[in-house]
Amino acid sequence: MTKIYGIGVGPGDPELITVKGLRILRSCGVVAYQSAVGHSSVARAIVADYLRQEQIEVAYHLPRALSGEGVDYDRAIAPILPYLDQGQDVAVLCEGDPLLYGSFMYVFTRLRSQYPIEVIPGVCSPLVAAAVLGLPLSYRQEVFKIIPATAPVERLKTELGTVDACAIIKLSNHFAKVRSVLTELNLLHRAFYIERATMEEQKVIPIELVDPQNVPYFSLILIPTQSVL
Amino acid sequence: MTKIYGIGVGPGDPELITVKGLRILRSCGVVAYQSAVGHSSVARAIVADYLRQEQIEVAYHLPRALSGEGVDYDRAIAPILPYLDQGQDVAVLCEGDPLLYGSFMYVFTRLRSQYPIEVIPGVCSPLVAAAVLGLPLSYRQEVFKIIPATAPVERLKTELGTVDACAIIKLSNHFAKVRSVLTELNLLHRAFYIERATMEEQKVIPIELVDPQNVPYFSLILIPTQSVL
Repeated sequence: MTKIYGIGVGPGDPELITVKGLRILRSCGVVAYQSAVGHSSVARAIVADYLRQEQIEVAYHLPRALSGEGVDYDRAIAPILPYLDQGQDVAVLCEGDPLLYGSFMYVFTRLRSQYPIEVIPGVCSPLVAAAVLGLPLSYRQEVFKIIPATAPVERLKTELGTVDACAIIKLSNHFAKVRSVLTELNLLHRAFYIERATMEEQKVIPIELVDPQNVPYFSLILIPTQSVL
Repeated sequence: MTKIYGIGVGPGDPELITVKGLRILRSCGVVAYQSAVGHSSVARAIVADYLRQEQIEVAYHLPRALSGEGVDYDRAIAPILPYLDQGQDVAVLCEGDPLLYGSFMYVFTRLRSQYPIEVIPGVCSPLVAAAVLGLPLSYRQEVFKIIPATAPVERLKTELGTVDACAIIKLSNHFAKVRSVLTELNLLHRAFYIERATMEEQKVIPIELVDPQNVPYFSLILIPTQSVL
């Protein structure tokens, strides 16, 4: 029976896809990926060298809506459907991991009652940022949090107020807000900033020097453990 | 110059190692892995089929001490040192990801001032559990927490009291404590239990039916998002 595969391609370096993800990616007749309207697909760029010429490529467009309100997701993922109806297996690419803040979830929740879906997990960006920066994240009894910068200030304060270690993701135009909360909570000296980890345009910038007007979506702040082992 | 590689081998399925992790694993003359005293190495078992006969294997033993107190970690990792002194590259295996609760961190923090170390991130267990269970973890502004079951009850209550979605790891003999907290906070109906995800002995058990006396270390509870997309 025709099947959908949600493949986590990792955060940027093409070699950070899993062996299984690569095998299944190459075995499917159809490869689908999302992109913001007017932009090329980041996930497709990551696996570009692995694609076979005879594979059919299908792009679909998800607006990057904060709340999701007013977005017609059924219509957004519709370009995939004809291939499934034809009985073709479709590999749907997703940056990082498909089920952790991944664009694949919009496909997953809509189509899982109609088609078998297998998810191939991927390396998520906090782990890659830690590897690039050389920072152990968390040990033993410590809680590790992944906090979207898009959360309200009060929530940021609550979660950061009890933090052992965390990654603050989706910074974009929320960077100034986050830096201000970190300063208020006396956490700025523990915070490390990285953008586009393992992509060609990777940048590591001291957090005091980051220009809040120039922070991309694929950026994050790490607060590593303070424990000494 | 001789180099240490910390390789995340993922949580169980040998195909969930990254392409880069596999390439580097096979390129090193020496492969090191830790195991609990008296047990075989889980990380070695995951990559067993990838090892080359001419690779030198080095086991070292880390006790699974909760606090780490009284453990001589310098002595524990000593078996690796002669190979580095000989100028050989050493691949140190680690289940899941090396820097997120990984046994590799004991090697990393001790040897990074003496040798160049490159960390190859791995897929961590919450992502794999979500893929096996077919559960989207978190969306949009939601905070995702990784909470060790070994944390004190009050900390568990604080973190779970504000939870959007989380993974509770390292259950072992802390399962009964965690289940009692989940019950008290009215979260039990949202909780899913899985052990040894993607390993041969993988088990998914309804959380009410789990026997607290028989919960392995490689088990976790997922509380997925409640959002509907």
